[in-house]
Amino acid sequence: MEEEEEPIQNLWQEVRDLTLGTSTQINHLSSPPTPLQFLRGYVSPNKPCLISNAVNHWPATTLWQSTHYLTNTLSSSTVSLHLTPTGRADALSPNPISPSSLCFASAEVKHLPFPDALTQVLESEMGCVGYLQQQNDCFRSEYGSLSKDCDSDFGWASEAFGCLPEAVNLWIGNELSETSFHKDHYENIYAVVSGEKHFLLLPPTDVHRMYIREYPAAEYHYSQDTGKFSLELEEPVRNVPWCSVNPYPSPELKEKEMTKFPLYFNGPRPFEVTVKAGEILYLPSMWFHHVKQCPDSRGLTIAVNYWYDMQFDIKYAYFNFLQSLPHSMLCDPASSGKLGLESQHNISICNSEDESSMGDGTASASDKLVHDADDTTEK
Amino acid sequence: MEEEEEPIQNLWQEVRDLTLGTSTQINHLSSPPTPLQFLRGYVSPNKPCLISNAVNHWPATTLWQSTHYLTNTLSSSTVSLHLTPTGRADALSPNPISPSSLCFASAEVKHLPFPDALTQVLESEMGCVGYLQQQNDCFRSEYGSLSKDCDSDFGWASEAFGCLPEAVNLWIGNELSETSFHKDHYENIYAVVSGEKHFLLLPPTDVHRMYIREYPAAEYHYSQDTGKFSLELEEPVRNVPWCSVNPYPSPELKEKEMTKFPLYFNGPRPFEVTVKAGEILYLPSMWFHHVKQCPDSRGLTIAVNYWYDMQFDIKYAYFNFLQSLPHSMLCDPASSGKLGLESQHNISICNSEDESSMGDGTASASDKLVHDADDTTEK
Repeated sequence: MEEEEEPIQNLWQEVRDLTLGTSTQINHLSSPPTPLQFLRGYVSPNKPCLISNAVNHWPATTLWQSTHYLTNTLSSSTVSLHLTPTGRADALSPNPISPSSLCFASAEVKHLPFPDALTQVLESEMGCVGYLQQQNDCFRSEYGSLSKDCDSDFGWASEAFGCLPEAVNLWIGNELSETSFHKDHYENIYAVVSGEKHFLLLPPTDVHRMYIREYPAAEYHYSQDTGKFSLELEEPVRNVPWCSVNPYPSPELKEKEMTKFPLYFNGPRPFEVTVKAGEILYLPSMWFHHVKQCPDSRGLTIAVNYWYDMQFDIKYAYFNFLQSLPHSMLCDPASSGKLGLESQHNISICNSEDESSMGDGTASASDKLVHDADDTTEK
Repeated sequence: MEEEEEPIQNLWQEVRDLTLGTSTQINHLSSPPTPLQFLRGYVSPNKPCLISNAVNHWPATTLWQSTHYLTNTLSSSTVSLHLTPTGRADALSPNPISPSSLCFASAEVKHLPFPDALTQVLESEMGCVGYLQQQNDCFRSEYGSLSKDCDSDFGWASEAFGCLPEAVNLWIGNELSETSFHKDHYENIYAVVSGEKHFLLLPPTDVHRMYIREYPAAEYHYSQDTGKFSLELEEPVRNVPWCSVNPYPSPELKEKEMTKFPLYFNGPRPFEVTVKAGEILYLPSMWFHHVKQCPDSRGLTIAVNYWYDMQFDIKYAYFNFLQSLPHSMLCDPASSGKLGLESQHNISICNSEDESSMGDGTASASDKLVHDADDTTEK
């Protein structure tokens, strides 16, 4: 028995074997699949893929290279700018009341004319980072005058999913903007128009490796007077279940993080996917993802993502079951030793009720559309 | 905590909620779905459905009502007749060496001209029951001269699955023939041409409710001299993992069976589906099924089933994980009491390696094609 892997480790490995086959990379399609190919080969098995030559015909791929075009087209549009000191919004940060613990910090959201907002993105530096994003279908509302530059949906995807996109979001950021590990209860078609996005992907079966715990919600506030951010806890306290793992800890924190989160750092590596301008990523529902970006020559990364409703089917039921199993049930002390898991770490996995309202919290815990998805999943 | 259901019970219930929606029956389609509808609505979510008006155009639906037509067309065909004393082949039976334990009993298979074989099916009675079946693609081999009476595949299904049927099997039996609970590593399109089939269906998530255990393989042998069957254990001993539950115990055994298999008898009821002549059942891969039948006015039930290769995807990985969890991990003594599970029942769940070679054993443990599927699943 000592030599055998635990069931949960077998599960992590088997999903990798099934997803990658004999490759070490996710599938890369040189052109969009047919609806049946997409549904059969990727959506049904909940398997990501990278797709080239799917947006070559979008006017956006050329027009948006011109910053003048963007500011001109959106000259009278008011947009939502997310401001943080570090570029990390919807991420864990030291709790302002007791800095030895963490809180879930959201950006300050400012509504201002696009040209001013874009300037703030371009002039970002550590201390004040702007990210143009709002996961409330912003591409079809705030950025409506750009909509004609992209297709309103991907025909092959809409046919496969059996519906039109529930939300389309625009993202304009720079190299400082980063999105922490989370999952969405949506099928996601993620198109990069300029710059590059770097995804780390983990299948839903790796849920215990994310160390999802509850953190009190907090929000950044920028003071014009001091030119500094303060972080304020929400009152009354609202707890947000969130992934604890930062996959890129600073060198001085690395050892500590590896000791705190051994299942992540000592387990199988995440799938690494770079999505270049003109490529799209199919990011299946419920996959955990972390996103960094490299800007184009102007210093911008621009992407549009299409969220489609996911199916709540047997896969979802299996996920809920898996997530509800306490960590102690899944690894015996002997083999968790192999994973570097010291028994003194009391790994608290949220109970299943808390968890089912997580994930949805996800991309933006304060987001309306995401909360709608949440309602869908509750019985 | 005492009031809460265990995670495994939540899983059983959630899959039912997702499969049935607000209905108490599986979906019944009045005509065949499109490939996309079928893949999206049924195959991907691993959800059964009943379909009417899919085989109206088959010559079989009229021609096979004539026994004369069948014997005439197959007058020179040699077919495989499965003979058992009770109609229950590939089922548990008292072990001939130690009758207090059970063995896995297979039929005696005789190869004889179709007209003689059909006579034995029609003249079956308790003591000697004949069932014309062989799960080795027999419809396209032994019964090749009937093939033109049915379509060679279902276009909408083949498009959805992305392949042609791996095997097509014919079944000609009577009211005594019964198939015990098992699962197949195939997608199954099951068409009833005459008579009715009664299915009990359980989703793969109910695996622990089947009490899969290992039983020594045995085979019936019919003696022309005595007119009786003997049951002989295979030598060397070969163990077959098989479902322990008989869903229709005789009245005098019922209480004992309910005590032995409380998770089955006290848990959620199986889905009951009657497939009438002219209807087809989509029986998703990995679903446990038990089959009984009602004959037509001649005393025959005739069906053709199409096995398509299944996808070994994240659902399969989740299943293997679930199955590998020992029963003791899933129900605590308090709540298993609620299920009627007495702690003295030492429920042995086969380990995951044994199990992965089960299921495939399934419909016919001695079957070539089924063993091929087995190979596929091994890594």
